[in-house]
Amino acid sequence: MSKKNRLIYLPLGGAGEIGMNMYLYGYGPKGKERFILVDAGVTFPNMDQTPGVDLIMPDTAYIEARADRLDAIFITHAHEDHVGAIGHLFSRIPAPIYVRKFTGAVARTKMEEHGQDSRNVNVMGLWPEMVEVGPFKVGFMPVAHSIPEASGLVIDSPVGRVIHSGDFKLDPDPIVGDPHNPALLREIAGDGVHALICDSTNVFSPNPGNSESGLRSDISALIKAASGMMVATTFASNVARLKTLAQAGVDAGRSIVVLGRSMQRMMDYANFAEVLHDFPPTIDLEDARSIPRENLMLLVTGSQGEGRAASAQLARGKYRGITLREGDTFLFSSKTIPGNERSVGGIMNAFSELGVTVLDDNSGNVHVSGHANRPDLLEMHSLLRPKMVIPNHGEHRHLREHANLAREHGRASVIAPNGSIVDMTDAEPKIIGHIETGRIYLDGNVLIGSFDGVVLDRIRMATRGTVVVSIMLEDNRLIGESWAEIMGLPETGKVEASLQDSIEEAVDRELDRAKPSRMSNDDEVENIVLRVVSKICRDMVGKKPVCKVLINRLVDG
Amino acid sequence: MSKKNRLIYLPLGGAGEIGMNMYLYGYGPKGKERFILVDAGVTFPNMDQTPGVDLIMPDTAYIEARADRLDAIFITHAHEDHVGAIGHLFSRIPAPIYVRKFTGAVARTKMEEHGQDSRNVNVMGLWPEMVEVGPFKVGFMPVAHSIPEASGLVIDSPVGRVIHSGDFKLDPDPIVGDPHNPALLREIAGDGVHALICDSTNVFSPNPGNSESGLRSDISALIKAASGMMVATTFASNVARLKTLAQAGVDAGRSIVVLGRSMQRMMDYANFAEVLHDFPPTIDLEDARSIPRENLMLLVTGSQGEGRAASAQLARGKYRGITLREGDTFLFSSKTIPGNERSVGGIMNAFSELGVTVLDDNSGNVHVSGHANRPDLLEMHSLLRPKMVIPNHGEHRHLREHANLAREHGRASVIAPNGSIVDMTDAEPKIIGHIETGRIYLDGNVLIGSFDGVVLDRIRMATRGTVVVSIMLEDNRLIGESWAEIMGLPETGKVEASLQDSIEEAVDRELDRAKPSRMSNDDEVENIVLRVVSKICRDMVGKKPVCKVLINRLVDG
Repeated sequence: MSKKNRLIYLPLGGAGEIGMNMYLYGYGPKGKERFILVDAGVTFPNMDQTPGVDLIMPDTAYIEARADRLDAIFITHAHEDHVGAIGHLFSRIPAPIYVRKFTGAVARTKMEEHGQDSRNVNVMGLWPEMVEVGPFKVGFMPVAHSIPEASGLVIDSPVGRVIHSGDFKLDPDPIVGDPHNPALLREIAGDGVHALICDSTNVFSPNPGNSESGLRSDISALIKAASGMMVATTFASNVARLKTLAQAGVDAGRSIVVLGRSMQRMMDYANFAEVLHDFPPTIDLEDARSIPRENLMLLVTGSQGEGRAASAQLARGKYRGITLREGDTFLFSSKTIPGNERSVGGIMNAFSELGVTVLDDNSGNVHVSGHANRPDLLEMHSLLRPKMVIPNHGEHRHLREHANLAREHGRASVIAPNGSIVDMTDAEPKIIGHIETGRIYLDGNVLIGSFDGVVLDRIRMATRGTVVVSIMLEDNRLIGESWAEIMGLPETGKVEASLQDSIEEAVDRELDRAKPSRMSNDDEVENIVLRVVSKICRDMVGKKPVCKVLINRLVDG
Repeated sequence: MSKKNRLIYLPLGGAGEIGMNMYLYGYGPKGKERFILVDAGVTFPNMDQTPGVDLIMPDTAYIEARADRLDAIFITHAHEDHVGAIGHLFSRIPAPIYVRKFTGAVARTKMEEHGQDSRNVNVMGLWPEMVEVGPFKVGFMPVAHSIPEASGLVIDSPVGRVIHSGDFKLDPDPIVGDPHNPALLREIAGDGVHALICDSTNVFSPNPGNSESGLRSDISALIKAASGMMVATTFASNVARLKTLAQAGVDAGRSIVVLGRSMQRMMDYANFAEVLHDFPPTIDLEDARSIPRENLMLLVTGSQGEGRAASAQLARGKYRGITLREGDTFLFSSKTIPGNERSVGGIMNAFSELGVTVLDDNSGNVHVSGHANRPDLLEMHSLLRPKMVIPNHGEHRHLREHANLAREHGRASVIAPNGSIVDMTDAEPKIIGHIETGRIYLDGNVLIGSFDGVVLDRIRMATRGTVVVSIMLEDNRLIGESWAEIMGLPETGKVEASLQDSIEEAVDRELDRAKPSRMSNDDEVENIVLRVVSKICRDMVGKKPVCKVLINRLVDG
């Protein structure tokens, strides 16, 4: 029984959340499966849950423990939530990396930035080219998305063909990169594939998605109606959108300046991968200074309100010598990712204060999503005719909705959040186990586990404030006076007395009257101080601070 | 010149933000104006900007300094962003408070909770009843909104009639409370009012708003389609929605349990104000336990994902003995306020994990806004025919858009964010000055200023971590060893050495080799330690922590 070969699927990140994609496929008898890993993405921290953290990535402990059975890593496309962790994690999960050319350029840079050998990154062509890795043969299937050379994977296993969709939309004319190609998908599907593991992010969007090609004339009309300087932002990696924006700007008679360094870098990658054709001529910022502002259009970074990006700097007043003013127009050719509403709104309001007109998708047809909406998902199911659909890349509610959608149309499905071991050997997927999954934080330049307590301490300091009390003891008696430092707490309480003084006085009083036997025990002394601090803070300011007690004992010597 | 009487408007909160409404109107010669205050609202803290803060309210310093010239406070309605600060701030700005009956019940409770005399709260009837306060006569103008007895204010001044819209929508059948009454508005307007100070929150919503009365049958259809327990949430103060939900539940054959305590309290206020008629019969939770779950509908709090509310507790597993399970349905009959997407999303996903179907406004017609959309704002302008429209209650971009809208239709307007002194004496509003405005934080049980630095310290501790170093000195020499406490920082750096040990060793080393002349100076000693900590933390973990140095000097005695 345990010798039976099984095909398993195990999401380590991206299933039950949007972002941080990482999926394992395995084949073989239990405990002897050979694995391939798909994607190594990051997700981004926030003040609510991960203050001070720089990046978040999936915990790779499960596959680290089986690293000798990991035959390859495939990266579907170059978005950070698919490729962003490869440099950080490669040393833990070394295996040949397979990519397409554009993704490879990005992945190699990331490997080099983290001291990894970029020769581990292997560029492949498109299906029917396939690479044999352990029990699998894997090829890249072109899909349309919001970045060049996005791909699904054709994963041939001994039990049949599995399609890993990657992020995709059904755009017949995505401007840059591969169009949706139903004929190719039908050819790949043949009589129907065994399983489809499928992007779920937009399952709640009821209407078919729009094409990138529909934006140019609408954006151009908006630009023609604008009088002063025109500035537009989008994701740096959305090279197609950069081209659309630049074309729309040229159509409206403006000279184009690509200001964002990360945008410039993405365009370089796209040129390297030979996917960027007919990008309109651009000019340097220096040359732009002699052109009237109503004839200029700048492309800048910061569509999500990132504090250091160009859009935020312009909102605060100045970026590389450029100042926006009354009559200028700023276009968000993007959608705001949930959680970023406050920062994006802050930038919009700052522009409003400067007199700058802000346009976003309330203003017209200025953005299309890179993901398949509900009817597009159904279309994908129909083209590939899988026995089972396993929703991935989505929060739990997206996975649930997508699974329901598949079942309503007669396909087997299962909700498999991170850590679910799914047996896909037969026609019906079965969850046969769960593993602990977690997150790794890049914090400064160290990788820490999400359960290490470091971030919890930060959240407590931030919500409760901190008190540190230092005391000197000699012969079990307080020498001099205690010293309290208060951080992140009001200086005075309701009655205007100093919180610091009140704590110090109360600590001195309590320690002076404590019995020598208690004072000889550091734990007892700490407890006395903690109780005093807790009571004073509760009474005076109504807070329960984090408290540390530093006990210095003088010893003869 | 300075003797000339002027009519001025000065927003202290709510203009340039959504929430925290507080507006001053004044009349008289410069420096001798008599004032009335409209609304005393709060806004809510968040981890990004105000970690650990309990409530945020406008800084009343300007009117405190002129308290002898404040003749009255009017509160338009009982939402927290209009009435929430009255108990906290009344002692700083004592003046008679005027309200309608429902708002009065809420305001009195808030006054009493904060030890203020609730007899300062005076209940008035509707216009044409007016109260004379200094140079003004003021009456309450009924408007439809998402809470009973919402009102605009008719403010008669020596230069003409001013309408303060308050929050409103144009709902002819709001189920509970006053319907939109165009005939009354025309009567109040006469030949056109002098000025309209007008709600701007929904100016970007392009279509006319819908009526509360349209929801009942649609929600009932959703409930009929549900098989298990039905649970619905909305704002507790939206008594009309509670009635709509209860009616829809009864229409679908279910018994209704109002579980939220704050909902129950709002219904009590509504009964006291005699505005709640024909609320369907409800049953107690105890009685509900004997009823099959498919015949029950619970109304609970927590539509914004508040961590302690019933919806969050149900999502975590249990609330007052109730557990939701596969096949149950949870309805968000509400919109998610920007900034709360992550918490609401978290609850939706937790329900999805339990197998509970979540419905929200993606699922159908389950919510209408309480605010006037763009065409509704224009309709209000047309009904009142003001010489000038001054947009309030909105972020800066809302104020700008609303001012543009008014001007496009031939009315004078001005963008007047918090702190703008607007002279409304003539037909064109003019900004004649600015005052410093700020925010007051309720932090625990203390009111602190937003510029006190307390919250900034918390944010720094949360993003950088904290190091405290305690040292003992005698005769300008270190006694024993230094003691470092690290909080919110990784325990070990890249090379696996202990951060704490490394800091302590480096501090000991540097202090041991410092010259006695430097060691005699606490500032110098502190600088040495700060530099050591900064270097070690940067090198080992890549962080710049907040650092405190506690220097204990032993003196003979």
